[in-house]
Amino acid sequence: MEIKVVRKVLDVNDTMAEQNRKMFSEKGIFVLNVMSSPGSGKTAILEKTLSFIMPDIKSAVIVGDICTSNDADILAKTNVPVVQVNTGEFGGDCHLAAHVIGNAANNLDLDDIDFLIVENVGNLVCPAEFDIGESARVVVLSVTEGEDKPVKYPLMFRECNAALLNKVDLLPYLDYDKEMAIGYIHQINPDMPVFEISAKTEEGFDPWIDWLKKKVRQM
Amino acid sequence: MEIKVVRKVLDVNDTMAEQNRKMFSEKGIFVLNVMSSPGSGKTAILEKTLSFIMPDIKSAVIVGDICTSNDADILAKTNVPVVQVNTGEFGGDCHLAAHVIGNAANNLDLDDIDFLIVENVGNLVCPAEFDIGESARVVVLSVTEGEDKPVKYPLMFRECNAALLNKVDLLPYLDYDKEMAIGYIHQINPDMPVFEISAKTEEGFDPWIDWLKKKVRQM
Repeated sequence: MEIKVVRKVLDVNDTMAEQNRKMFSEKGIFVLNVMSSPGSGKTAILEKTLSFIMPDIKSAVIVGDICTSNDADILAKTNVPVVQVNTGEFGGDCHLAAHVIGNAANNLDLDDIDFLIVENVGNLVCPAEFDIGESARVVVLSVTEGEDKPVKYPLMFRECNAALLNKVDLLPYLDYDKEMAIGYIHQINPDMPVFEISAKTEEGFDPWIDWLKKKVRQM
Repeated sequence: MEIKVVRKVLDVNDTMAEQNRKMFSEKGIFVLNVMSSPGSGKTAILEKTLSFIMPDIKSAVIVGDICTSNDADILAKTNVPVVQVNTGEFGGDCHLAAHVIGNAANNLDLDDIDFLIVENVGNLVCPAEFDIGESARVVVLSVTEGEDKPVKYPLMFRECNAALLNKVDLLPYLDYDKEMAIGYIHQINPDMPVFEISAKTEEGFDPWIDWLKKKVRQM
């Protein structure tokens, strides 16, 4: 019974996601859905990413959190428009659903945006199941989380278009086998680009920013 | 509609959880539900914890993962009985439900166990909503995940009886304000014991093991 209900919720979500996709496409907006475990560094990455692309590309952010506006407060300092969505504390709120993104987008001037980032709720499981009408999906994985997350949470890695391996500045202090981690990613998603970065030191940002700009400009 | 359905699923779960609780209580088994984000170090902590308590306390483990038996394989080396539960990849499987624990417990000799550890699916959101009939709940938080997780995922911290602040061996290499993190924990759950540990160096394990042994013996 539970599965059947979840399927129905996802069907409704898919319909709303297609409406979003059509709307974003008509406005020529590239929408990036950024997902990860809690604490892998999504907000810090987005802060740096925006500082690199902002001169060229008009951007905005929708930030999803169960509680607090901490991440939106940080991102607001970049001077891009930020909409905070708080999903509340109860069931079904461990992810951003398509109708939530549709509503949040109403708070943005879509004619003045080329690139919309959605920072999803910190969760490596549920968000992967919900299409929000995005153009591409990125998963962030911190090197402090161990090597085997791609094979333990395969749906997330199968559904994403690129992976950001963050906090590489900590590698000297960890027993972390980076090649093993990248091998696991490619076991799930053979052609996935993996960008090794540090939001703290800005190491490795150039290829990531190039990839992103190309995607936005193709829109 | 979605919320109503989730409520119904949780009601059924509560009934099953009470059955589990009665069964574990009759057998005199202390059940610890261990929850956290992916990659915070649950398995490494449990491996060390078992090595400290095993001479005194007969233990077993139920390990929940969406995919793989990596964690069970590691824990099996401690020579305690381990049951791996794979929840599969689809909706409703981002947590361990009470009926899953009831079924898994059937694979253990409950007359020969005083302490049952349940390593939940790596997820700081959904598992907190599901009572599995446990005696106590512990949340693991890694210092690499940033300070504000308690206020961003308050239900988890409200519902747990203790917090393990893991990977403190990495503190010299991080910009991490430990007092701020503990302050956030106590903002959500004022009396929560916080054990600062490193599963890598075994730093800080003594007070944690003492707390745990006391709990098991009170059962």
